[in-house]
Amino acid sequence: MNNASSRSAILLIHCPDQKGIVVAITEFIYRNGGNILYLDQHVDAGQGVFFMRVEWDLENFALSAGEIDTAFAERVAGRFAMQWQLHFSDEVQRMALFVSKQPHCFYDILARYEAGELQVEIPLIVSNHPDLQTAAERLGIAYYHLPVNRENRDQQELRHLELLEQHGIDFIVLARYMQILGNGFIEKYPQRIINIHHSFLPAFPGARPYHSAYERGVKIIGATSHYVTAELDAGPIIEQDVVRVSHEDSVEDMVRKGRDLEKIVLARAIWHHLRNNVLVYENRTIVFE
Amino acid sequence: MNNASSRSAILLIHCPDQKGIVVAITEFIYRNGGNILYLDQHVDAGQGVFFMRVEWDLENFALSAGEIDTAFAERVAGRFAMQWQLHFSDEVQRMALFVSKQPHCFYDILARYEAGELQVEIPLIVSNHPDLQTAAERLGIAYYHLPVNRENRDQQELRHLELLEQHGIDFIVLARYMQILGNGFIEKYPQRIINIHHSFLPAFPGARPYHSAYERGVKIIGATSHYVTAELDAGPIIEQDVVRVSHEDSVEDMVRKGRDLEKIVLARAIWHHLRNNVLVYENRTIVFE
Amino acid sequence: MNNASSRSAILLIHCPDQKGIVVAITEFIYRNGGNILYLDQHVDAGQGVFFMRVEWDLENFALSAGEIDTAFAERVAGRFAMQWQLHFSDEVQRMALFVSKQPHCFYDILARYEAGELQVEIPLIVSNHPDLQTAAERLGIAYYHLPVNRENRDQQELRHLELLEQHGIDFIVLARYMQILGNGFIEKYPQRIINIHHSFLPAFPGARPYHSAYERGVKIIGATSHYVTAELDAGPIIEQDVVRVSHEDSVEDMVRKGRDLEKIVLARAIWHHLRNNVLVYENRTIVFE
Amino acid sequence: MNNASSRSAILLIHCPDQKGIVVAITEFIYRNGGNILYLDQHVDAGQGVFFMRVEWDLENFALSAGEIDTAFAERVAGRFAMQWQLHFSDEVQRMALFVSKQPHCFYDILARYEAGELQVEIPLIVSNHPDLQTAAERLGIAYYHLPVNRENRDQQELRHLELLEQHGIDFIVLARYMQILGNGFIEKYPQRIINIHHSFLPAFPGARPYHSAYERGVKIIGATSHYVTAELDAGPIIEQDVVRVSHEDSVEDMVRKGRDLEKIVLARAIWHHLRNNVLVYENRTIVFE
Repeated sequence: MNNASSRSAILLIHCPDQKGIVVAITEFIYRNGGNILYLDQHVDAGQGVFFMRVEWDLENFALSAGEIDTAFAERVAGRFAMQWQLHFSDEVQRMALFVSKQPHCFYDILARYEAGELQVEIPLIVSNHPDLQTAAERLGIAYYHLPVNRENRDQQELRHLELLEQHGIDFIVLARYMQILGNGFIEKYPQRIINIHHSFLPAFPGARPYHSAYERGVKIIGATSHYVTAELDAGPIIEQDVVRVSHEDSVEDMVRKGRDLEKIVLARAIWHHLRNNVLVYENRTIVFE
Repeated sequence: MNNASSRSAILLIHCPDQKGIVVAITEFIYRNGGNILYLDQHVDAGQGVFFMRVEWDLENFALSAGEIDTAFAERVAGRFAMQWQLHFSDEVQRMALFVSKQPHCFYDILARYEAGELQVEIPLIVSNHPDLQTAAERLGIAYYHLPVNRENRDQQELRHLELLEQHGIDFIVLARYMQILGNGFIEKYPQRIINIHHSFLPAFPGARPYHSAYERGVKIIGATSHYVTAELDAGPIIEQDVVRVSHEDSVEDMVRKGRDLEKIVLARAIWHHLRNNVLVYENRTIVFE
Repeated sequence: MNNASSRSAILLIHCPDQKGIVVAITEFIYRNGGNILYLDQHVDAGQGVFFMRVEWDLENFALSAGEIDTAFAERVAGRFAMQWQLHFSDEVQRMALFVSKQPHCFYDILARYEAGELQVEIPLIVSNHPDLQTAAERLGIAYYHLPVNRENRDQQELRHLELLEQHGIDFIVLARYMQILGNGFIEKYPQRIINIHHSFLPAFPGARPYHSAYERGVKIIGATSHYVTAELDAGPIIEQDVVRVSHEDSVEDMVRKGRDLEKIVLARAIWHHLRNNVLVYENRTIVFE
Repeated sequence: MNNASSRSAILLIHCPDQKGIVVAITEFIYRNGGNILYLDQHVDAGQGVFFMRVEWDLENFALSAGEIDTAFAERVAGRFAMQWQLHFSDEVQRMALFVSKQPHCFYDILARYEAGELQVEIPLIVSNHPDLQTAAERLGIAYYHLPVNRENRDQQELRHLELLEQHGIDFIVLARYMQILGNGFIEKYPQRIINIHHSFLPAFPGARPYHSAYERGVKIIGATSHYVTAELDAGPIIEQDVVRVSHEDSVEDMVRKGRDLEKIVLARAIWHHLRNNVLVYENRTIVFE
């Protein structure tokens, strides 16, 4: 991990694979006096695509933060038809939480927030139920209780969008929100809505996955965190994990064991998102760890 | 584990749940001088079904092996409408292996067999390819190369059934056999055909699951061992396990990592089957460990 | 899991193994009209010791809660030289938390408490630091800041014992308390002090296990929850779990990954303790799941 | 995975960290017409050391295999005080197996060998027991039965060294060999003797680790593959894995469950060694996956 006291730049890049990409990028950093902290690259040989995450120390770097983008575009990215994102290690993203009645992921995120584990601001919580309002307000976070049903969904989503705008939200975490989002809403936050689904996708998408897992008699249950796309529970997977169950576990036992999984899997996905470790390409993620 | 030198009896039981079942069974064993080695019971509260596996030492037991069945039926099973199986710890089941070209599960089972890990006889190997004949014959196991295609399947399955009969086979292991069995064949060996499927079922049933797992971008792959039923890859699951993968893993890497999983998962399923640990009820297994 | 609305009795038993134990216990329950919900038994063949956890429904049971103990002693336990504990499913134990500065286990337990996951009361938190006072008081839990050092430890432990007495505490959880307890203190709460140690014991006991794990270059780190005994980090282990690490993980990364492990492992140990699933015998636990 | 049909070069490098290392290496490859297939680097910030594994396609590379070493030394390595190894993807290393009576790792390696999973030659098996001779000879591998005891160890190790020399052995795998090697022997094969120890090191080094694990009452057992150094069971760890156990598992059950672990862990270590994925630095490994 990098030294927290210094500031670094992070480039997330993908482009058609060809010779000379790594040397071009590292030369750009080196010529400007940068010291590489991490460099992870991956070539998808089947598709012929090059992926990279590179992070370098900005101390003594010749270019200001504002200049890097333009310089990189001119000197490197153009030649290789790159798509790229530039981030800085001291950015503090603003996250909105969408919750329902289930409190475990909500509490887990707030505990990490309060303990300083996550470099993030949480100015906004939205819920279709009032249950978690007290806990939110204890930490001084605005909590909007906006009940959603089939009839008013489109209208409430306009309200959601307003609130996200007002609070300058960068990305949204659905912490067991349990509502299907409209496509109009999803399109506004591409690869910026993180969901936790309580199954090992693609097994058991949709409602009541623990009941389905019980019915099928699986010996292992899972949880999946993914970016939300138009197709339900089919977006790019960021993180998954599993836990063993047996015939002794009732649906209620699976729900209990699954809660801990969901918390951990969602927290890891948020961590990777905040660290700018995640690239999405054709509905799959590259997660540079 | 039981003391290998002594002989024990094993009862696998299920019946509608009611008061007094455990006392009736354990009294039967106690009154006849039996010492209980293992007793595992499970009540499915939702369905109101009682399950038990009980194993007791036959040294000084008042009833001979031949008498237990009748005595248990008369004195206990009838009162509780039990379905039960009686086994003895020194039974040596006879197993047939059905294989194709993929050698890893085949070699793994033969290595365990040769090392004496499994209390089993393997008199027969059937394959639709000739590739593994030499390795089989080295161990003195009869190997029948019977190519199967859509046209001759029914005919070849009659030949398979003949061979199984001739060799006195108790159960069949499909060690990556890669052929779909006919229902007529399956019905002859209910809960006695064990398959290994190279995915975490119910995700990715059918052909080429590693390709599908790659396409979907999952972060964990699995293997599933189950009893074969008429519906493809939908039979009662005996054992599953998983291993992490990442964007760095190509389909070939998944195949490689999956091989070790498949070996272990299939070997555990065979172990449980041979130890009479497995009860099937409504397409789910109770695996008493 | 049992139906929460009904009340059940739980017996935890161990005694020298002999014939007739199971029948004696189950007959006692059956003759008095009890319906067995769970029955788990284990025989340690090497040591010749029998262990059991049995839980039965008290609805229509012939004996009152008060009578069971005497009746069981007279009719069953005496004959078999049993040691046993009797519990009831509606008991609410009273737990004290001992904490220091590290907040993750503390927050995790409080979140579970607030969400109603644990059948427990937490009337008391003791700390050698003031850091977590606000969070404790938010939930109305008494928080005592009692700094401990080598000189005042014995004196402060007398104060601790007073507080535990005053608050009617049944058992203590050291949620990363980071202080060594005196033997006098430990003896007052045998098998009733649960610690979480941040390593895979017996590897890396004592201070700074993540540093030691890093130095040794292990590929997996762990966490261990155990009952506290006089010998440091050597008490009976209730639960352990692990997570993979690699050369890429610095000590700080291990600390981060370990936090989630510690939370989960400690929570599982508390769960088993509260469910009366745990028997201790010669420094090993039997955990009936 | 690389395309098996093409040939690639692999550099394993470490040196003091400084600016410009990556650009120097990748420029060297690019200027000579190489296409990078994999590039993994790691900086140990605490120790200030840079590590890299880089693999590039040799098709159209300007330098012959013979010239790369000299050219890299002159143009790159000298400037950065690098220590490095150069390998080629079509190298076939020669491995000797040292075995005893336990057959499971032995059979597993031979099965992988026969199935073509490992790019290796196994011309030599050495054992202090005759038990596995037949299986070795079936595959045409020379098997030397050389009984070792305290008195004749030094003498037998001279014989071992002769055999290793005669058969042109590159590295040795101790597949549950169960004998302590002399330092004189170990020094001849630095980082080229791979052992499998049947515990989660550093827990339970030395003899009878499953017995010790049982005594301690751990809930998870493990296996560790490491390079052999003078200090017993203390060499750099290549791979570890674990499996859950419970109070129900006797020592014999642990031995059985452990066998599968040992096989898998040793096989992964051999795989990484053969792929030139492993760098050793100060008794820790960097395993580039």
